Amino acid sequence: MAGSTFGNIFKITTWGESHGKGIGVVVDGCPAGMELSETDIQLYLNRRKPGQSRYTTQRKEADAVEILSGVFEGKTTGTPISMVVYNQDQRSRDYGDIAHYYRPGHADYTFDAKYGFRDYRGGGRSSGRETIGRVAAGAVAAKFLNQLGITCITYTKSIGPIEIRSFDAEAICQNPLSMPDSDAALKAEEFLKSCMENKDSAGGVIECVINGIPAGLGDPVFEKLDANLAKAILSIGAVKGFEIGDGFQAAYAKGSDNNDSFRTTKTGAIGKTTNHSGGTLGGISDGSSIVFRAAVKPTPSISSPQKTVNQAGEEIEISIHGRHDPIIAPRATVVVESMALLTIADALLCNMTAKLDSVRSFYKNKLFNPK
Amino acid sequence: MAGSTFGNIFKITTWGESHGKGIGVVVDGCPAGMELSETDIQLYLNRRKPGQSRYTTQRKEADAVEILSGVFEGKTTGTPISMVVYNQDQRSRDYGDIAHYYRPGHADYTFDAKYGFRDYRGGGRSSGRETIGRVAAGAVAAKFLNQLGITCITYTKSIGPIEIRSFDAEAICQNPLSMPDSDAALKAEEFLKSCMENKDSAGGVIECVINGIPAGLGDPVFEKLDANLAKAILSIGAVKGFEIGDGFQAAYAKGSDNNDSFRTTKTGAIGKTTNHSGGTLGGISDGSSIVFRAAVKPTPSISSPQKTVNQAGEEIEISIHGRHDPIIAPRATVVVESMALLTIADALLCNMTAKLDSVRSFYKNKLFNPK
Amino acid sequence: MAGSTFGNIFKITTWGESHGKGIGVVVDGCPAGMELSETDIQLYLNRRKPGQSRYTTQRKEADAVEILSGVFEGKTTGTPISMVVYNQDQRSRDYGDIAHYYRPGHADYTFDAKYGFRDYRGGGRSSGRETIGRVAAGAVAAKFLNQLGITCITYTKSIGPIEIRSFDAEAICQNPLSMPDSDAALKAEEFLKSCMENKDSAGGVIECVINGIPAGLGDPVFEKLDANLAKAILSIGAVKGFEIGDGFQAAYAKGSDNNDSFRTTKTGAIGKTTNHSGGTLGGISDGSSIVFRAAVKPTPSISSPQKTVNQAGEEIEISIHGRHDPIIAPRATVVVESMALLTIADALLCNMTAKLDSVRSFYKNKLFNPK
Amino acid sequence: MAGSTFGNIFKITTWGESHGKGIGVVVDGCPAGMELSETDIQLYLNRRKPGQSRYTTQRKEADAVEILSGVFEGKTTGTPISMVVYNQDQRSRDYGDIAHYYRPGHADYTFDAKYGFRDYRGGGRSSGRETIGRVAAGAVAAKFLNQLGITCITYTKSIGPIEIRSFDAEAICQNPLSMPDSDAALKAEEFLKSCMENKDSAGGVIECVINGIPAGLGDPVFEKLDANLAKAILSIGAVKGFEIGDGFQAAYAKGSDNNDSFRTTKTGAIGKTTNHSGGTLGGISDGSSIVFRAAVKPTPSISSPQKTVNQAGEEIEISIHGRHDPIIAPRATVVVESMALLTIADALLCNMTAKLDSVRSFYKNKLFNPK
Repeated sequence: MAGSTFGNIFKITTWGESHGKGIGVVVDGCPAGMELSETDIQLYLNRRKPGQSRYTTQRKEADAVEILSGVFEGKTTGTPISMVVYNQDQRSRDYGDIAHYYRPGHADYTFDAKYGFRDYRGGGRSSGRETIGRVAAGAVAAKFLNQLGITCITYTKSIGPIEIRSFDAEAICQNPLSMPDSDAALKAEEFLKSCMENKDSAGGVIECVINGIPAGLGDPVFEKLDANLAKAILSIGAVKGFEIGDGFQAAYAKGSDNNDSFRTTKTGAIGKTTNHSGGTLGGISDGSSIVFRAAVKPTPSISSPQKTVNQAGEEIEISIHGRHDPIIAPRATVVVESMALLTIADALLCNMTAKLDSVRSFYKNKLFNPK
Repeated sequence: MAGSTFGNIFKITTWGESHGKGIGVVVDGCPAGMELSETDIQLYLNRRKPGQSRYTTQRKEADAVEILSGVFEGKTTGTPISMVVYNQDQRSRDYGDIAHYYRPGHADYTFDAKYGFRDYRGGGRSSGRETIGRVAAGAVAAKFLNQLGITCITYTKSIGPIEIRSFDAEAICQNPLSMPDSDAALKAEEFLKSCMENKDSAGGVIECVINGIPAGLGDPVFEKLDANLAKAILSIGAVKGFEIGDGFQAAYAKGSDNNDSFRTTKTGAIGKTTNHSGGTLGGISDGSSIVFRAAVKPTPSISSPQKTVNQAGEEIEISIHGRHDPIIAPRATVVVESMALLTIADALLCNMTAKLDSVRSFYKNKLFNPK
Repeated sequence: MAGSTFGNIFKITTWGESHGKGIGVVVDGCPAGMELSETDIQLYLNRRKPGQSRYTTQRKEADAVEILSGVFEGKTTGTPISMVVYNQDQRSRDYGDIAHYYRPGHADYTFDAKYGFRDYRGGGRSSGRETIGRVAAGAVAAKFLNQLGITCITYTKSIGPIEIRSFDAEAICQNPLSMPDSDAALKAEEFLKSCMENKDSAGGVIECVINGIPAGLGDPVFEKLDANLAKAILSIGAVKGFEIGDGFQAAYAKGSDNNDSFRTTKTGAIGKTTNHSGGTLGGISDGSSIVFRAAVKPTPSISSPQKTVNQAGEEIEISIHGRHDPIIAPRATVVVESMALLTIADALLCNMTAKLDSVRSFYKNKLFNPK
Repeated sequence: MAGSTFGNIFKITTWGESHGKGIGVVVDGCPAGMELSETDIQLYLNRRKPGQSRYTTQRKEADAVEILSGVFEGKTTGTPISMVVYNQDQRSRDYGDIAHYYRPGHADYTFDAKYGFRDYRGGGRSSGRETIGRVAAGAVAAKFLNQLGITCITYTKSIGPIEIRSFDAEAICQNPLSMPDSDAALKAEEFLKSCMENKDSAGGVIECVINGIPAGLGDPVFEKLDANLAKAILSIGAVKGFEIGDGFQAAYAKGSDNNDSFRTTKTGAIGKTTNHSGGTLGGISDGSSIVFRAAVKPTPSISSPQKTVNQAGEEIEISIHGRHDPIIAPRATVVVESMALLTIADALLCNMTAKLDSVRSFYKNKLFNPK
């Protein structure tokens, strides 16, 4: 199936392999008239760029984005925005060995089972570089949502056993692990060093908070806002779990603890006294912050010896060398944020047709055609 | 948006409200020539029928299904299978009060915010009865997958703090809580009784294991098998979290622990020595069992007093009476199973076009037209 | 594939066979808060009901519609509107013979080729009765569009060689052939009588005019408004051609004749001096009336002898008896109108997200939430 | 809405503007393991390249395609195939004038109405250059279908009043108008010369014949093969009409003439004695050739004076100079062919899941996994 498209109205299609000519995305359905520049995109891409700390792959890539269509005189035209990042540091000679065996924890075997063969260079389409397209598109969604007062903050909540104990938004950019707690970040760095010494890797938890979302986004039944967020987040390579609000803790709670009471805010609006729900009720945003977490597995590429089989079915032992992150979570924060914002942008556009009154006002007031 | 459709090729559309005339589903894209009867569907529906134990609502409903189309001379014709369950016990007089205030933990407020008003009778479209359509469709998917040797088992893994400690498949049907551990079930019953005495409710965790899935299902990038499972499961009303394989535990693990080594099985096939991945790698099934869990929140309808606001914005105190389950998880097991099987059935059909060789053989061997 | 769903936001799913239990449709995505009753639907269904003249099948069907969901206290709730028409006059004994041979001009053979067998009773899913679901949904779209000042008129433009020469909107309902020219209708009746005497049938052309459509509906490239209209109309059983504006005549014209000059109307708006385009330019509505035509083939069921083969591959001669229209076009006018209005309703909702300014105004002015 | 994606399983997404950096397409869902090179694509693109005769625009473009992803070691990998053609001859200075007025017959006004502004350079997204993406994708579909014995021939059937009177397949490439009748082509050249002298343009009809299609493609109801062909063809800029088989002539015919009798072929297969249906019955391919026609309007850009309005609403007179074809039809033949083949490729893949027997054989025989 054609599995590289995401979204209904704000729709993206990504393409590209780790060691092919480049990675790209087509963003279709972004409203017209929005200022957009390559700088907007580059700021997001820089957050996932490799080689920025000792905890990320040392692959050399500028990851410079080029906008090829859909922007005219600095503004989106409403037609598809095509963006490309050409690969520079391809070094495919490094990867010859993995053509013939199946790395544990990687998609080598499943791609062969599905397609009969695979682009084995650097993981091909299943490489983490695939997320460049998501992040470039996420930057467009972020810019769009900012126009409506919606903002997002995403950070590493835990690395291995080290969890954050305090929250300082400014700290997130001040340590290489994107943690909002400098002390925890230092401890996590120690932990990662020991992982690396042991030729091992670590998992982590990412948390994302989205503010400014009006009540009403998402649809009952299958297109629940949290259902679409779950799909968006689980579609990221190494993610193995998703929870919203109290998440799995809710399964251990009682109703009297888990329910959020409604209240009237100072402005007369309806609010909640707590946010156990994480911002959705019945799959529709309730006006509170959206809060969710993603479980990210340890980097599967480790240099300690592992047992596996080759394509001939022979059992062998391998150890993987080369440029690999000992932890995925920190670099994945911007990917999680991108996927979340793409989901919200789509839900926000989908919501405009929910009520006859608003459709009628829209066309009567010529919101669609201000001339 | 039209949010009541799920699936790409094996596609379902559900409709109906708790206290409307009925609940139904249209299953489109089920292959032709499969034996199907109302009994096949009824067996699944009976697993979610109310009134079967003291832990479920005492609403009286036969939940008898009728097939209206798509089956001829006992076999599916390839055209849409329309199924309906007419509501019997509507008693809408019980629900007059909730028309004017917002129940904590329910979708009353978010429906009003989205649509301007709502069918307040018994929760309308956001009622648990909406899942009847999912389960009827799930029964069709189950029958289809059984033809290909794919089976599924779903059970309550924990209720509040009580977790299963052993696994006995036969026990699942022998206790009212669908737990595969009779001792745990007894303890959970005690726990639920105390919840009910305290006018409270409890959450739980559901686990689902699917066997017999060939390697290769699911697509890279956005249509990963686990991403679609996550969406399917989070689309169920009370679910707040999803994890596959080791799930959130993977975030605390090291790569050397989390990776599954490949091995050669006795039949010469490629297998894995462990299943930390839960049956997918890179979003594509790896030939192992699919294993995932869903976190189900406590029933939000509790009879202890709660603070909330009414439609006029006044802060009030309410207590909810009537027929409500103190725990959602056990009755939701068949809903989780249904959504999982619908996802797998769709992935299985989507996978048939992945390789040129198989498409060519298909048409050359006239698999499409055996005459 | 699941081929019974139409539309993106205003989305319908139909089901049912000619001689099954009933025919139905689920309309999902209709905005909430619109008054809707079974009478609204019935008025449309009555326009396609059989047995109303000597030129339509004498099958006895009340075609009484029942709304099963999605309407509460007389208004749409924004959730799926499920509607059913139960079949009464099934008389499947009449149709036993066609189980074993392939009627020329019918889908008997192609259904067998695709699905391996078929519900042969009265054509099963390929019967004209399938359009009941389309018309019921079309009535909902019509009601919605009327709220926005959009209206539609559809009529028979020609029957066999008899073409209308004048246009009188009131005449359409005053003759059994839905022609806006009473003289032409009389001639067409004579022509049809001779067809019936010769055990033959006739084709015809339907024309549809939609007024009140704002400029801007439809999208560039694949989702052009006229492309979606073409699909909608060709999806009706007996339609073999579609043209918009000057249509095929444009292929014989020169640019200087075919181009419509723009002008300024009295109100200062931009209009056109002519409408050769039929209301779209570049696939987007230009503010003029949408005008298109559909070519409808002759009824394939004729009682004169025809050569064909049976399932065993033997060449045989058959003559089809029973209740059949000698002309399809007049009864199909309401089907054409329904499909056109469903297409327009969808395009109208899809268009609301085209501009950043309008999205921003929408959310800023709380059009989405007037409280 | 995101309107730049076409197809369900064999899915394409196009992007790019006439005078932007380039034009491109992402083909997702093409089966893996198919040999594919840039030469395969270039051969198709060359058929629509400008500047090849006096009847096409003199814009200088090599239209050289580059494959950026989805092909490894000369074969498709099953992941998205991204292709780009960079624009060379942008000369945007020529187009400054059209920024402020609305050309008759063009999409200038409707783009402004929809999006508030437009990329006016050379028509932007509504330029004929947009079709480069379609043709590049069509070349991939053609290669795929050739593997299954499906071929296609497309030609100009008429230009203005000049219609072909004989059919010689080899002639199509031997005259600049893609007509299969050399005499007609000479007359059409004369006719076009007089159009050009009169600063005018001409319309034409394109015919397309697809051979080798098995019976069974397409789905009942909305996804009829002919309905999807109609959408595909009407989605091409200048097309105003579509008809299949006898098309509009069927509306003037009798049932006894229009029905195709079935017969048994020498090989024992079921065939038809005639092909009035154009290869589909009930929307499903019947094993005959698919035959359809498209009505193409005259080039709207003509240099004779025309009345129109500018953005300020003032009525003005313009005459359009620059590089324009006096006839669109011949260059559009490859676009029509591309859209038809994309539709067929998608229908062919969608059809694989129609029967339980074939799905079961597929998985049982490990067609999906030949190892």
